[in-house]
Amino acid sequence: MEMENASYEPNDLRRFVREVFESAGIPEPDAELASDVLAYSDEHGIDSHGVARLDTYYDLLHAGRINKNPSIKLVRSKASVATVDGDNGLGLVVGPKCNQLAIEKAAEYGSGWVSVSNTNHYGAAGYYPVKALERDLIGLSMTNSSKGVVPFNGRERMLGTNPLAIAFPAWEEKPLIIDMASSTVSYGKVEIADRRGKKVPEGWCLDANGLTTVDPLAMINGGALLPLGSDENGSGHKGYCFATMVDMLSAVLSGANWGPFAVPFAIKAASSEERRVGKGIGHFFGAWDISGFQDPDLFKQSVDDWIRVMRATPPIPGATEVLVPGDPEHRAFETRMRGGIPLDTRVVASLQRISASSGVFMPKRM
Amino acid sequence: MEMENASYEPNDLRRFVREVFESAGIPEPDAELASDVLAYSDEHGIDSHGVARLDTYYDLLHAGRINKNPSIKLVRSKASVATVDGDNGLGLVVGPKCNQLAIEKAAEYGSGWVSVSNTNHYGAAGYYPVKALERDLIGLSMTNSSKGVVPFNGRERMLGTNPLAIAFPAWEEKPLIIDMASSTVSYGKVEIADRRGKKVPEGWCLDANGLTTVDPLAMINGGALLPLGSDENGSGHKGYCFATMVDMLSAVLSGANWGPFAVPFAIKAASSEERRVGKGIGHFFGAWDISGFQDPDLFKQSVDDWIRVMRATPPIPGATEVLVPGDPEHRAFETRMRGGIPLDTRVVASLQRISASSGVFMPKRM
Repeated sequence: MEMENASYEPNDLRRFVREVFESAGIPEPDAELASDVLAYSDEHGIDSHGVARLDTYYDLLHAGRINKNPSIKLVRSKASVATVDGDNGLGLVVGPKCNQLAIEKAAEYGSGWVSVSNTNHYGAAGYYPVKALERDLIGLSMTNSSKGVVPFNGRERMLGTNPLAIAFPAWEEKPLIIDMASSTVSYGKVEIADRRGKKVPEGWCLDANGLTTVDPLAMINGGALLPLGSDENGSGHKGYCFATMVDMLSAVLSGANWGPFAVPFAIKAASSEERRVGKGIGHFFGAWDISGFQDPDLFKQSVDDWIRVMRATPPIPGATEVLVPGDPEHRAFETRMRGGIPLDTRVVASLQRISASSGVFMPKRM
Repeated sequence: MEMENASYEPNDLRRFVREVFESAGIPEPDAELASDVLAYSDEHGIDSHGVARLDTYYDLLHAGRINKNPSIKLVRSKASVATVDGDNGLGLVVGPKCNQLAIEKAAEYGSGWVSVSNTNHYGAAGYYPVKALERDLIGLSMTNSSKGVVPFNGRERMLGTNPLAIAFPAWEEKPLIIDMASSTVSYGKVEIADRRGKKVPEGWCLDANGLTTVDPLAMINGGALLPLGSDENGSGHKGYCFATMVDMLSAVLSGANWGPFAVPFAIKAASSEERRVGKGIGHFFGAWDISGFQDPDLFKQSVDDWIRVMRATPPIPGATEVLVPGDPEHRAFETRMRGGIPLDTRVVASLQRISASSGVFMPKRM
């Protein structure tokens, strides 16, 4: 059983995360950056990528598996593009800094692209393109991640859930935010079904024998996730293509570990794969300067128009409305900034453990 | 009933297409470009986008609906990015020229991006990134297209099948080529099922009432295609996000008609939508210079390694092998360059009609 047993004050939750990172040896400005990334998830309803993962970052830092003071290095560069080595820093720090480099390049060259190796899990992919919006840019981010997904027609985990995020600014409307894994669903959704004792729909998972299963535990115990599209009828090869694109740009291009060799995030699984083909995992950040293509105000007004046209689509029987990308995040933000961040008992317990171990006061409840 | 009643000599089919375009008033170098684009499809097994569509281009040209001698204009530019107005030229001519501009920008600035308005159907999306490979670039293309697909939870056609293509060069292996529509399947697959009197799988189509249907005719007569992922269980919102991204970059950014206002390709349907929000349809071309990120030879060797690792994945029961993106195209190319391009009777009849009308000799059979 999962219960949302309490809601926490958003700004004090940010304070808690920042102080926890500082207590683990992360310099203050970097701890501030990292807390901003996690807060984006909690404040926008992406519960899987916020403070729910703080304990893993904390344990990895205390185990000395992440570099607290990385020397982030430019490896190669040519005008609008660059490769960066994250020196095994926290992805929540390396990510924002490399995203910032892509943004600066876009301001100078019309677009900016940074492929990053030797980094770790960077939080929610959607955080990064949203940062680009402040500068009237279109932002993009991708990352590879540890294996959990089969290639189309394969029966073993060979690719991560490899997400892509991209955001477009609007005028009076809220920005369009696209943030999606290239698997049909994330591993978190299968875990939640398992904890609730529920079956999962057909098309999410294979079991250890490569057969489709509706039993979440059959996936967790040696099975795998299916790519977006699931099977032949659903065009599952397209989700595989999507994951390939992300793996190429994030990991193969930067010199990170790609495909099944991507370093696991969970501390327990950390040494399961022997072969290494690069350094850490990989990210890819991009930005386009709208003013290089069109008048930015006119562009944003067209985005408003687009949003209103899509919303006016009559819904299918059983649905109440047609949303646009980003609506779930914007709605969660409004609710949570008013009512606080709801955390389930399991997450609260993990924060209490961190609080006891670090001496950082628990965040305030609303 | 469909029959592959004859195979045609690839180079003579190119000659036929070039001469047909010339007969319709397209200058020789442009006709050569256009025939190269269509030949890519026929030679790589993408039967829906090759000479099967020559009659539509031909009729549009003869109806004066496409500008035979466009003045393709740079509208805006900033270092690595630009917007181009295609002056209502043939997409098969405007596309390659704008793709070339993206390639040249990438060679100069590390990446190049061109958003194009006032253009028409540009053939197979995969043609363009493959051109970039010759210069050791990663290539990308997208295009919007006339409405056929619902937004997630919607019941009306509001978006095109909006494809994305991206290609990565390899060393000894053949390049990775990703070329996919953002709908579960293309309209062509539904048409083929209808002509063969077959049902389509669940998850491809809605009928005119917004209910899922396995009857291809129920989709064709006022229904719609579903986005990749199909429904809520399959994460159909992701296909909708994917189509949104393509529509934004190709059409909203360039000033073309977006969403449901994209100009139809078929000559009969050409005036069905009254509102116009821009000029023509839109494309988006991009290229990244690998040498700006990494040693290109090392990158290509890593791509080989990636390909071999993926191919070695054990297949699911019932499948014989795991492919990598581009395999279907490469296999078709080998077969067809040896055995010729198979054309079904309906396509042959359309070429015979064009031959009679234009005076261009039919292509040679193998």
